[in-house]
Amino acid sequence: MISFAGGLPNPRLFPVEEIADATEKVMAREGSAALQYATTEGFLPLREYIAARYRERKGLAVSAENILITNGSQQGFDLLGKLFLDPGDGLVMESPAYHGAIQAFGVYQPRFETVPLLDDGIDVDLLERVCESPGLKMIYTVTNFQNPSGLSYSAPKRQRVAEIASQYGLVLVEDDPYGELRFRGEQLPTMRSYTDGAVLLGTFSKTVAPGLRLGWVCADREVIEQLSYAKQATDFHSSGFAQRVLYQYLMDNDIDAHIAALTAAYKEQADRMLSAMDAHFPPGVRHTIPDGGMFIFVTLPSGLSALQLFKQAAREKVAFVPGQAFHPFGKGGDDSLRLSYSTLDGDAIEEGIRRLAAVMEREMSAAGSGV
Amino acid sequence: MISFAGGLPNPRLFPVEEIADATEKVMAREGSAALQYATTEGFLPLREYIAARYRERKGLAVSAENILITNGSQQGFDLLGKLFLDPGDGLVMESPAYHGAIQAFGVYQPRFETVPLLDDGIDVDLLERVCESPGLKMIYTVTNFQNPSGLSYSAPKRQRVAEIASQYGLVLVEDDPYGELRFRGEQLPTMRSYTDGAVLLGTFSKTVAPGLRLGWVCADREVIEQLSYAKQATDFHSSGFAQRVLYQYLMDNDIDAHIAALTAAYKEQADRMLSAMDAHFPPGVRHTIPDGGMFIFVTLPSGLSALQLFKQAAREKVAFVPGQAFHPFGKGGDDSLRLSYSTLDGDAIEEGIRRLAAVMEREMSAAGSGV
Repeated sequence: MISFAGGLPNPRLFPVEEIADATEKVMAREGSAALQYATTEGFLPLREYIAARYRERKGLAVSAENILITNGSQQGFDLLGKLFLDPGDGLVMESPAYHGAIQAFGVYQPRFETVPLLDDGIDVDLLERVCESPGLKMIYTVTNFQNPSGLSYSAPKRQRVAEIASQYGLVLVEDDPYGELRFRGEQLPTMRSYTDGAVLLGTFSKTVAPGLRLGWVCADREVIEQLSYAKQATDFHSSGFAQRVLYQYLMDNDIDAHIAALTAAYKEQADRMLSAMDAHFPPGVRHTIPDGGMFIFVTLPSGLSALQLFKQAAREKVAFVPGQAFHPFGKGGDDSLRLSYSTLDGDAIEEGIRRLAAVMEREMSAAGSGV
Repeated sequence: MISFAGGLPNPRLFPVEEIADATEKVMAREGSAALQYATTEGFLPLREYIAARYRERKGLAVSAENILITNGSQQGFDLLGKLFLDPGDGLVMESPAYHGAIQAFGVYQPRFETVPLLDDGIDVDLLERVCESPGLKMIYTVTNFQNPSGLSYSAPKRQRVAEIASQYGLVLVEDDPYGELRFRGEQLPTMRSYTDGAVLLGTFSKTVAPGLRLGWVCADREVIEQLSYAKQATDFHSSGFAQRVLYQYLMDNDIDAHIAALTAAYKEQADRMLSAMDAHFPPGVRHTIPDGGMFIFVTLPSGLSALQLFKQAAREKVAFVPGQAFHPFGKGGDDSLRLSYSTLDGDAIEEGIRRLAAVMEREMSAAGSGV
């Protein structure tokens, strides 16, 4: 089976030895502290490191007080839901949207409002129209190489969405798990550059390793304090052991060099997938062109169903995620699918796309012949 | 400052070198897997280990399918709240109750019903009366050396509470963070021995180390499945890195010998505190006698306020937790306080109790003289 379905970072690129070395140091120097209960907000040097990186790379005026360590970004969604969302509160999601966020926020029973994601970010005209509806509370966005679409917001659109959120008094959440994995084009500002109120989520899952389960929320100090209360009630704190090991790893290694190696590998895999798609996909099948991250999104010609395609593709031993997963309540998206290139080598990607193209062609000719 | 306020396990007893060795092995053998995303339910061998220990020690008919790995017991409360509690649902807590559970469940806005904890467990006559009230959903208990009281349920009371919960169709939660830390008397059955429906929470925070942030829920397979959905939405999974390190530690070491060393130390500290209390506390001050765990609970004679005592004690450089922390909304408990002996050596315990006794005496004579 060639699976384009996973959303996993490439395990061959994990810094296994470096994490082992970091653990050895931590246990030798501060083993008891690493194994004891810790502060809810997170390991202070790690929070300072994250804030400093934002100051240097993004020009954000933030310090450790603006950072809460979480169990990946996913826990950030849960805490934001706990803090901000009551049943029936309006929550704007992109269409398609990241399914982990749909799932996490869904627990708090918001009223989902979906706004199409265009090639340069969310459709701001429709967003403004939705913002006129009563009871709207939050906008959730993924601005860089979104999961599932691979699409990114342009700089003007980031600014415009930040302005709209401020104007309507909405909580603006910018989820940025992939921002560091840019392999084309220039780094763009975060929404927090345009509005201090924006809540910015990050994670070490894509740049270091998901198994540490460490991410963060960057927000105003008052919001961080409230989220920390919620975090305390939820699980006291994230693993102090994992936090100190991660911090030691970051101190002892050149993270930028490591990220450069990651993005070089992902670029090669993405480009291989893009050229295979262009060579083999039937006319009428469209796909996005990501500037980073791990995903390419495919839109099928009318009449083709991604779920139907999924079943046929499984027989040819190739897998993907049908688009319905990226819509609240699974409503919509059957003309689309997500492909990940992150864990496969070039030849597997080529072969998988060939198989998928063949299945598409069969389905299209069946649909065309009215069968 | 001599602090009896903390609820931390003694860091001098953490298996620092053993965890370092376990990490080295894990990273050498299965580093990539440890650093990758993992299953929501938890690392299967660890779940099997926990189930096997329950089968051997408690005679419970459980397997890995009955175990969900969580970020300490605290996350178990949060997931149970997510799954079972709607605003206004009745939740029975012991009085006094564990403050972490009050905090976690409080997020889901239950109607707290408190039932006094007696020397042999919750007051079952009052419990039955409360069970007659409409909308009751859950009973939360800590049956072994409860935090804050140090009290334990007798075997008949465990059985009776299990029967009552079954009879009224309530979710019965038995939180057992300290059960392995028994230093007097015999191991008693868990409530799951009497009713298959009971939800049993455990943790490695007290037997191995809190910094790993690993605990578990043991429950019926259907409940574990539902809790796993909630866990997936909350943070995907607990750190796979920490889970594999913990499992390797458990495989390579004699955990029973380690726990025996812990309980020997805690017994010595508890007995030192008990004898110091009996030697120095003024007449009318009562205290519990724990058979294990980390806490002794003190009840003050009428007219004395724990909050007032706390302020005076701070001047004498001795600290404790005033009883209000152990009541929903801080209502009640001002005649009581919690002392922990877990992290202090015998001489510090003796000196702290002397100081506290002196402050009590001053407060009592002031109260007696009408000042």
